[in-house]
Amino acid sequence: MSATAEILSELEALRLIDPHTHINPHAAASDSLADILGYHYYTELAHSAGLPRDQIEEPGIDPKEKVARLVPWLATIENTTQYSWLLEMCRVFFDFEGSLINESNWEALYDSSRKLMQGQTWESTVLEKSGLDQVYLTNDFDDALTGFDTQLYVPCLRTDDLVFNLQNSEVRDRLATATGITAKDSGTLRQAVGALFDHFAANNARACAISLPPDFSPEYVSDSRADILLEKAAADQALDTSECRDLSCFVFLCLTEQCADREFPFDLMIGVNRNVYEDGVYQGQDLYDKRVSLIQYRQLFNAFPQVIFPISVLSETSGQELVSYAWIFPNVLPHGHWWYSNIPVFIEKDCRSRLQAVPRTKQIGYYSDMYKLEFALPKFAMYRRILARVLATDFVRDRGWTVVQAVELGRQILRGNVERVFGA
Amino acid sequence: MSATAEILSELEALRLIDPHTHINPHAAASDSLADILGYHYYTELAHSAGLPRDQIEEPGIDPKEKVARLVPWLATIENTTQYSWLLEMCRVFFDFEGSLINESNWEALYDSSRKLMQGQTWESTVLEKSGLDQVYLTNDFDDALTGFDTQLYVPCLRTDDLVFNLQNSEVRDRLATATGITAKDSGTLRQAVGALFDHFAANNARACAISLPPDFSPEYVSDSRADILLEKAAADQALDTSECRDLSCFVFLCLTEQCADREFPFDLMIGVNRNVYEDGVYQGQDLYDKRVSLIQYRQLFNAFPQVIFPISVLSETSGQELVSYAWIFPNVLPHGHWWYSNIPVFIEKDCRSRLQAVPRTKQIGYYSDMYKLEFALPKFAMYRRILARVLATDFVRDRGWTVVQAVELGRQILRGNVERVFGA
Amino acid sequence: MSATAEILSELEALRLIDPHTHINPHAAASDSLADILGYHYYTELAHSAGLPRDQIEEPGIDPKEKVARLVPWLATIENTTQYSWLLEMCRVFFDFEGSLINESNWEALYDSSRKLMQGQTWESTVLEKSGLDQVYLTNDFDDALTGFDTQLYVPCLRTDDLVFNLQNSEVRDRLATATGITAKDSGTLRQAVGALFDHFAANNARACAISLPPDFSPEYVSDSRADILLEKAAADQALDTSECRDLSCFVFLCLTEQCADREFPFDLMIGVNRNVYEDGVYQGQDLYDKRVSLIQYRQLFNAFPQVIFPISVLSETSGQELVSYAWIFPNVLPHGHWWYSNIPVFIEKDCRSRLQAVPRTKQIGYYSDMYKLEFALPKFAMYRRILARVLATDFVRDRGWTVVQAVELGRQILRGNVERVFGA
Repeated sequence: MSATAEILSELEALRLIDPHTHINPHAAASDSLADILGYHYYTELAHSAGLPRDQIEEPGIDPKEKVARLVPWLATIENTTQYSWLLEMCRVFFDFEGSLINESNWEALYDSSRKLMQGQTWESTVLEKSGLDQVYLTNDFDDALTGFDTQLYVPCLRTDDLVFNLQNSEVRDRLATATGITAKDSGTLRQAVGALFDHFAANNARACAISLPPDFSPEYVSDSRADILLEKAAADQALDTSECRDLSCFVFLCLTEQCADREFPFDLMIGVNRNVYEDGVYQGQDLYDKRVSLIQYRQLFNAFPQVIFPISVLSETSGQELVSYAWIFPNVLPHGHWWYSNIPVFIEKDCRSRLQAVPRTKQIGYYSDMYKLEFALPKFAMYRRILARVLATDFVRDRGWTVVQAVELGRQILRGNVERVFGA
Repeated sequence: MSATAEILSELEALRLIDPHTHINPHAAASDSLADILGYHYYTELAHSAGLPRDQIEEPGIDPKEKVARLVPWLATIENTTQYSWLLEMCRVFFDFEGSLINESNWEALYDSSRKLMQGQTWESTVLEKSGLDQVYLTNDFDDALTGFDTQLYVPCLRTDDLVFNLQNSEVRDRLATATGITAKDSGTLRQAVGALFDHFAANNARACAISLPPDFSPEYVSDSRADILLEKAAADQALDTSECRDLSCFVFLCLTEQCADREFPFDLMIGVNRNVYEDGVYQGQDLYDKRVSLIQYRQLFNAFPQVIFPISVLSETSGQELVSYAWIFPNVLPHGHWWYSNIPVFIEKDCRSRLQAVPRTKQIGYYSDMYKLEFALPKFAMYRRILARVLATDFVRDRGWTVVQAVELGRQILRGNVERVFGA
Repeated sequence: MSATAEILSELEALRLIDPHTHINPHAAASDSLADILGYHYYTELAHSAGLPRDQIEEPGIDPKEKVARLVPWLATIENTTQYSWLLEMCRVFFDFEGSLINESNWEALYDSSRKLMQGQTWESTVLEKSGLDQVYLTNDFDDALTGFDTQLYVPCLRTDDLVFNLQNSEVRDRLATATGITAKDSGTLRQAVGALFDHFAANNARACAISLPPDFSPEYVSDSRADILLEKAAADQALDTSECRDLSCFVFLCLTEQCADREFPFDLMIGVNRNVYEDGVYQGQDLYDKRVSLIQYRQLFNAFPQVIFPISVLSETSGQELVSYAWIFPNVLPHGHWWYSNIPVFIEKDCRSRLQAVPRTKQIGYYSDMYKLEFALPKFAMYRRILARVLATDFVRDRGWTVVQAVELGRQILRGNVERVFGA
């Protein structure tokens, strides 16, 4: 048995906490194959290969019909990593035994899997087969956080709307409704943000999170400047680009202050441009500009040494910066492998560089980013295979580590640090 | 026999279409070793290692003397991939049996190869040994396109001059001569560009192509703005930087409109700065600024969903952006491995990332970019070896694919998609 | 015996010249383990993992106490490459036989190693065990260069202060003191710089060196512009940002002119931002902005073809640019693997790309950048292992080279080119 296989076997026995997902805790598992194939990773690839968007997103389309339309396009994407996840889900969860899903076999698969998914215990079956102990969520700031087990589905406060859209009255109204506080100046905004953190902390939330465009740089904005901007917004006057940017910075500052007070890690997901492909499918419109640097966060990292920033970067060209910043800043932590960087070739490079240069206590190996519960299994499986090979190669082969030492490092990256950082 | 060897053996049996070259169809094959060693890949490396430019480019120098001057410098570049191409050409085409070409053996090689190259059938011998069915060209917009077999040597309309130099009267004169139309405003420019496409389409052209500097971003420019610029140019008034940029954008727009009308793919080769090394040898003066992003093409990709853009990027730091944009934009296709990225370490990374995340129907694996016909063989051989290893590793080993499946994917990348995209 | 092992064995037998270090020739070797663990690579990682800076940098702290404070944190960084250097030093120099250094064994190691380091011959023992023939230094411009063997410890003129801080009277005073010339205009500055080069050349100096921030671009500045700036500085008037930048460019120009006159290579270390992490430990505060391009040096490389520029880049995203610029510019040479890029995953990629595309005569494989003599051994050992594997894979396996040929290439990269470029 090779070192890789030995290590992998141990890592596969490990139970997991998934520290970042988009799971809806009221409907965590899939209802049918349409929920799985409806994931944007498949719809956007099928669309990219030629399937018109309106066929995928026809209003009121029947789930089975949706799958029927997507299946013929699977042949065009069977090379992709995303397809390999699909196959692994179907094999593990639905006892699918083929090597390809195509027009000849999809309907039987649809029907048999549907039957399983309709079972009362499907959600717990998926959790169990996936070895998941906890699943972190992504919650709108005005989410009630009721009706689910927050020990299993752990809330996280997602703050994109607050930071980038507070100039819109609709967002300010949602904030007022959620907190009972009208944010009309810097003081009341701080109160309102504090009320959000009260609510989230009371419901077992473990982190604050945000995704950020490549050109964002969180600079300090004074209360008096924020007063002017918030009063202008409250008076329904339009803010210009520079005013919007300052308001964003101020809201970001208030959130970071709360993270400091509450000892919440602040997950930064750096580098996404929204709606780049305007006619793309749902959630398949975002891209990036690789011309971004962590130097843009210099002021933030210095100003808030007490806040832990688990950081995800979208472009692989940011991978080394993340390693270097985590190498010297105590509060900067590399976090998972995000979206366009979540394929083996980039995971492998990032995994190696982090293991070679960042303290082992500071690395959070992986999160699934999933929308439906079935995806944790193949995504973590992919990561574990890469991690096992890197540990076998860079540590057992090249540095003379024992397999036991390597496994212990793997466990820490995959599970131990998640507990330590997010205080599970 | 390893999976890599099995796959490679199948890929080597495949006949090829080379979708981007600089072949002169009137003198496609080399006349002597001077044509091969005169390729800028060798002259620039020898110059970089110390051979003065004026010794390489002495006017009227005898071909054999040129080779005699270059040969002593080969020892300094025998580590390079480019040298490995030279050796492979000499072995396959000229029965060279040494492991190095040096002062002791070059002359015999020169003479014996010269004899072969002077044979009547040399061009077809090279095509046959290289397995080439078709070779795509790079034609100036005013190329007559006569005197060669356009089914074998397929014309492509190269448009750098039109887009970046139309402010020069010499280029406008060439356009007028080629089309009979004087481009003095937006309307007549459109007509002239249309006439070029008529001419190229009538001669079996398959694509429009252009290389672009890192700071170019094709923004929309109105007809009325273009009218002003073209009238100013026609009056021999100098255009300032901003006016030149707008004129470039407008010409680019006209070309893209024609590509839409004619269903021509528009090959974009993104990221080259011309004449960076001013005293460099011929064609050995260009470099790049890696600070470029495909976000600069956001407007274009959205505005022309019906135009296919096979895209080459010069910097390896653009590789992931190309994968990501091709992953969601139906009209963005990764195309080959260009110039400074055309060495194994970067090809391997790009090849892996494309195979892992871009629909298999959208990838055009390789083109030679050659100036003389002999180069297709070693360049494609290099690519096939890398492709075979990636298929064996990432697909057969890591994903359980059969060798037959892997070969089929390789064939599609290497040949099938070239036919599909360029409509050969 | 594998090709890798055969090649490695030959490379390990090679004696070395280390072309860039920060060794103090008056105290080259370590005095105790505190000198080794006090290296910023360990203090910054321990601090990043959680050890407060004031515990590391307490004024007047006893060396043994310092080590006692650092040791408990080694468990958090034992995965890092830096830790592997520590272990290798302890094994080779101090006969340490454990696999980890921890609370249970550090004190014995401290005491036994201390005894060795206090021996009269320790410095020569380290040089001998490390196979070091020469060690290049980094000397302040006003270093007396006396009291040590400049054949063994070769001076290099470090010029960051001159280029970036000449607007400060303290630096101008140091320059006046060192040279006897007050630089009050362009002419006297040239004389003063010339006097520095006289002094360094007379003391066997082999290079001029500088580290440069990502936003620096050495543009031409005229004497008359410099006159104004230097007169303003001499009058103790503050220079604004643009004036400081021009003054930096002018000093840089004067240095380059001297390099041309003296045939000194000019080591450029491109891309560091100083003091990014303001509360970081000593020498653990610097980071970078990856948005830098060698195109910023276009004017310089063209203007000084007679000056050799060995170039180090801090960001791995600059690696390919360095290869490409060295591929066509005769005066651009890739130099070692610097700082945040000095870990195996990035060394391997850079090593492969340079060997595949830069003339073999132009590559300087490695320097240690060390502050204490013991570090050359594990750092060069790390590099040699990577080099041996790359040679075995890319050359012996993929290109059919013999082991002898591969070893010869390795020797040239590691030693031959250092002698050739720096004229040792």
